[in-house]
Amino acid sequence: METRKRERPAGPADDGTLLEGRNAVTEALKAGRTIDKVFLADGAGDHGLARLGAMAREAGAVVVRVDRRKLDQMSPTGAHQGVVALAAARDYASLDDLLALAESRGEPPLLVLCDELSDPHNLGAIIRTAECAGAHGVVIPKRRSVGLTAVVAKASAGALEYLPVARVGNLTAAIEQLKARGLWIFGTAADGAVDLREADFRRPAAIVIGSEGQGMGRLVAEQCDYLVRIPMKGHINSLNASAAAAVLLYEALGQREAR
Amino acid sequence: METRKRERPAGPADDGTLLEGRNAVTEALKAGRTIDKVFLADGAGDHGLARLGAMAREAGAVVVRVDRRKLDQMSPTGAHQGVVALAAARDYASLDDLLALAESRGEPPLLVLCDELSDPHNLGAIIRTAECAGAHGVVIPKRRSVGLTAVVAKASAGALEYLPVARVGNLTAAIEQLKARGLWIFGTAADGAVDLREADFRRPAAIVIGSEGQGMGRLVAEQCDYLVRIPMKGHINSLNASAAAAVLLYEALGQREAR
Repeated sequence: METRKRERPAGPADDGTLLEGRNAVTEALKAGRTIDKVFLADGAGDHGLARLGAMAREAGAVVVRVDRRKLDQMSPTGAHQGVVALAAARDYASLDDLLALAESRGEPPLLVLCDELSDPHNLGAIIRTAECAGAHGVVIPKRRSVGLTAVVAKASAGALEYLPVARVGNLTAAIEQLKARGLWIFGTAADGAVDLREADFRRPAAIVIGSEGQGMGRLVAEQCDYLVRIPMKGHINSLNASAAAAVLLYEALGQREAR
Repeated sequence: METRKRERPAGPADDGTLLEGRNAVTEALKAGRTIDKVFLADGAGDHGLARLGAMAREAGAVVVRVDRRKLDQMSPTGAHQGVVALAAARDYASLDDLLALAESRGEPPLLVLCDELSDPHNLGAIIRTAECAGAHGVVIPKRRSVGLTAVVAKASAGALEYLPVARVGNLTAAIEQLKARGLWIFGTAADGAVDLREADFRRPAAIVIGSEGQGMGRLVAEQCDYLVRIPMKGHINSLNASAAAAVLLYEALGQREAR
């Protein structure tokens, strides 16, 4: 056991949000705790695991089958019994919750949509900046995105306690819903047609932040009403995700406070 | 040896910038490679180490005496011979270099002074944003600050290749020099007297970014010509260091481009 512990690389959630073992995960699901992701050991014929997977899916978790050795690596104790789950540090809100918050404040909605961010520090910093800038919420996709882990909560410096975060099965579908509710979708692109200062963020707005590596996905980019160009005066042609979010959110706040 | 390797926690610079052993460090110093910090094993009477320390100090490195067990932890091979050094991923510039760059572009200087940042990702992101926003350089203090490690270089996304970074023995002395050269010093504070939009960043300007935990030091804050207030609309009363830098730098760029 000691050897196994020592060999384990730093896990994704060694922070109180990692659950392991069939009972622990089953009880967490029964208790209504929000589970982001469930990792089940590969291999057919284990009906207990299959039932657990169905239960987790039902509760909104992403369920992934992995090699048992991956579970061994993730597991702090080694006693995972074929299942490891990542619980969220906070419950998710719905898109309606975010829009209702804007309405309750009598403000045009200002949301941030994060397209597949993988770095919890980036997501946490964006949640913090969004809360400081008076935005009404952050939207993340269920898959290929970091969830609300304890690292995200810490990086948000407490903002996660105040700002609602919605997790959606499909970001493009969420964008369609937001458009139908009257929001304008602002993406960023190095060759965007609209300069940062000319974009009108006083309208109901959702700002899309692309992933660290690839930026916005193609489908998401095509859905944007405006592609905003952040001025680049040097050799590097993009900001990191959380810096871009800070520039856009404070431009939006500046415009909204000036009117 | 295997056991020692396995027990070693993730080191500060497991990235090609960590040097260990007397010969390696001596040769790096002789070759003029920039060394940020040298860790020497505690204990009097070792003249070789003492000479190495003097040589490193002469070359501008910070020299620290530490318990031998700390060196054991830092050392990838365990064969440190009482000395571990952190080399910089890039050479440092001087304050004059930064001001000369502004002059060569015919622009009023725009610098970022980082007051004791400890997170290499923050420093890297600030260097990246500063390069993108057209600033002329970043200034960091020699002590109680992360240096130009490989992690900083990576987080800067290449910006470190283009933007000069000066390392100064004393930030307050550097601020005095910059003031004497006509720069105005802008700090940030939650209760700052000047609103972000009212600060005049078209003038020769140095923006001070406080450390992650404590913000600006008291002496540095007292030296600021203006304490700028970034609007905070939520419950959290500050942005993280790199988000604050992004907001200030793009406000400065917006003002400079508008004139």
